Amino acid sequence: MTIIITGVAGLIGSNLSTEMVNKGYRVIGIDNLKLGKLHNIKHLIKKKNFIFKKINLENFENLKKLFKNIIRKNKVSVIWHFAANSDIQKGSKNFDIDYQDTFLTTFNLIKICRIYSINKFYFASSSAIYGDLKNLKLKEDSGPLLPISAYGSSKLSAEAFISCAKESFLKKALIFRFPNVVGRPLTHGVIFDFLKKIKQDPRKLNVLGNGKQKKIYMHVSDLLDAMLFIERKTKNGIHIFNIGPKDKGIFVKDIANKIAIHFGKNTKINYEKKKQGWVGDIPSFHYNTSKLLRLGFKKKISNSDQAINRCISENK
Amino acid sequence: MTIIITGVAGLIGSNLSTEMVNKGYRVIGIDNLKLGKLHNIKHLIKKKNFIFKKINLENFENLKKLFKNIIRKNKVSVIWHFAANSDIQKGSKNFDIDYQDTFLTTFNLIKICRIYSINKFYFASSSAIYGDLKNLKLKEDSGPLLPISAYGSSKLSAEAFISCAKESFLKKALIFRFPNVVGRPLTHGVIFDFLKKIKQDPRKLNVLGNGKQKKIYMHVSDLLDAMLFIERKTKNGIHIFNIGPKDKGIFVKDIANKIAIHFGKNTKINYEKKKQGWVGDIPSFHYNTSKLLRLGFKKKISNSDQAINRCISENK
Repeated sequence: MTIIITGVAGLIGSNLSTEMVNKGYRVIGIDNLKLGKLHNIKHLIKKKNFIFKKINLENFENLKKLFKNIIRKNKVSVIWHFAANSDIQKGSKNFDIDYQDTFLTTFNLIKICRIYSINKFYFASSSAIYGDLKNLKLKEDSGPLLPISAYGSSKLSAEAFISCAKESFLKKALIFRFPNVVGRPLTHGVIFDFLKKIKQDPRKLNVLGNGKQKKIYMHVSDLLDAMLFIERKTKNGIHIFNIGPKDKGIFVKDIANKIAIHFGKNTKINYEKKKQGWVGDIPSFHYNTSKLLRLGFKKKISNSDQAINRCISENK
Repeated sequence: MTIIITGVAGLIGSNLSTEMVNKGYRVIGIDNLKLGKLHNIKHLIKKKNFIFKKINLENFENLKKLFKNIIRKNKVSVIWHFAANSDIQKGSKNFDIDYQDTFLTTFNLIKICRIYSINKFYFASSSAIYGDLKNLKLKEDSGPLLPISAYGSSKLSAEAFISCAKESFLKKALIFRFPNVVGRPLTHGVIFDFLKKIKQDPRKLNVLGNGKQKKIYMHVSDLLDAMLFIERKTKNGIHIFNIGPKDKGIFVKDIANKIAIHFGKNTKINYEKKKQGWVGDIPSFHYNTSKLLRLGFKKKISNSDQAINRCISENK
C-alpha cells in the first residue's frame, strides 16, 4: 500500500512519514524544500519503503508528470497533504504566497486525485479558518468563517474545494483543523523564531507584539495520534475534526521567558506596544474538541504549556 | 464618484448599472462577454457616465494595466463584483472553470484594491457556499461550510480572501449570499435553458433530474433593492447577508409546466430518474433572512413562484 505525504520535510510530514514507514507502508514523500529541510528526513532516505521527490506542487504540469510515473509503479491509496506556506506574517503582506503554496498546491493535488483515481485525501487545515470569533468556543460547525490571514483564507479555500471534490469523485476526505504544532524538527513559528534569535544573541530577545497574545500549542505526537485515530474510526465521506488541547493557550511572554531561561544569558526581552504580533495574528481563541472525544479518542492531549516544555527539551 | 461593476453584461450587473447610471454615478462596467451579452447593455453604452471595458479578469497583468488607466482619470470608490462562471453543471466536471472565472477574478480584483487603494469591495456570493445542510434553516453563521459544487467552492474561497483583505486593507466589504436570480436579461439557469430548448422545439422539453428538485428564486429587482439598502445601512467592516425569499422554493417540474403553457405547443415534458439534475445541484434548502429584516429592510421579497411568473412575462 503506497501513500503520498506532502510537506514531508516539515514538522508534521516528517514525523508522520517516520511512523508510516515504520508500520510498513510504502511512503512517497514530496517537498519543495522551501521551508522543510532534507536533513529532517535523512533517516528515511535510506529506507527501502521511502521515496523522496522534490517538486513544487503549484506547477500542475510537472505534478501530472510526476504522478504519471508514480501511478505506473504504485497503487496509491491516499494523499496526506501537509505542504503549505506556514509563514502567516509574510502571507498577509502578499497574498500570492499563501495562494500559491497553500491553496494552489491543494487545488492541484485534488485534480491529480481525479485524473489518477486516488480516492482518499487527508488535509491539514487550521484553526485559522475560523478567523477571530472572539470568545466563542470553536466547534467544527462554528461560523461565520471569516479568516483574518491569507493563511487562514487559503486553508478555507482548500477545504472548500476538497468538499466539492468529495461530492464529485473522492470517496473519503478528512479535514484536520489544528492550532500551532510544536516538536522536532521545527521549521517555523514563534519558538523557531525565538530560538533562532537567541542563538544569534543570547542577551536579547525581540518579541513581535506586546507578549500578551495567547496561543494554543499542541505537540506533534498528539496530533499524529489523533489524526491516525480519526483515520481508523471514520468511514467514507467527508469529516472535519478540530484537534487540539482544551486550554485557552499560553502567553507569548511566557514562551519568551521559558526560552530565555533555557537558552539565554541574562536575556533582555523586548516587547512592542501593539496587541497583535502581525496582521492575521489571532489574539486568543478557545477550542471545542468534543467531536473528537465523541469518536472515542481517549488519549489526553498535552496542554499548551506541556507541549512547549516538551518542544524546548527536544530542541536543546 | 466612479464605481466599477464587473459582470456588467449579465443579469445583475446590467440591472445595477442601469440603476446607478440613472442615479448619476459614473459607472465603469467590465465583462469578458463569455456569458454576458453586449446587447444587454446597449442602452447604457450611449450614456455619458457609462464606460464599458471588455477584459478577462483572470489575467492579472492586463487587469493591472486597465486599472492604472482607470485610476489616472477617476477616483474609484467601490468595486461591485458580479463576474463569475454561472454554469454550475459545467464547473463540477472541470474545476478549472469556476476556479478561473469565479475565484481568480475575485482574488485578482482584491489585489487591485490593495495596489490602487480602492477600499470598498461588494461581492455577489451565493447560497451554494452552504452546501447541503439538509433541513437546517440557513443563517449567515451556519456551518460547516461544505459546498458541493465547484461554483459554491469558488464563491466560498472568494469570500475567504475578501475577509483577510478586510483585515489587511479594505475598509468595507459586503458579501451578499443569494439563491437563483431571475429577471431580464437572462444569461443562464433553468429558465434560460428551458426557454432555449422550447424555442428550438415547442413540442418537447427535456428536464435534467426528476423535476422534484426544489429551487429558490428571487427577482433581480428585489435583489437590487436589498443590496442597495444594505450598502446604505451598514458602516465600515465586513458584513454578510443572506438575501432571498422566505419560501422553500418551487419544484423544477412546476417551472417546466409554466414554460410549456406559455411557450410550448402540446409540449411533452421528459424527466430523468435521478434526483439531482447534476452534481452540485442542491435538492432543497431553506433560507433564514432575519438579519436583513433586523437591519430594517421592509420590502417584501417576492416568493419563488411570483419571481418566476414575473420573469416569464418579461421574457415573452
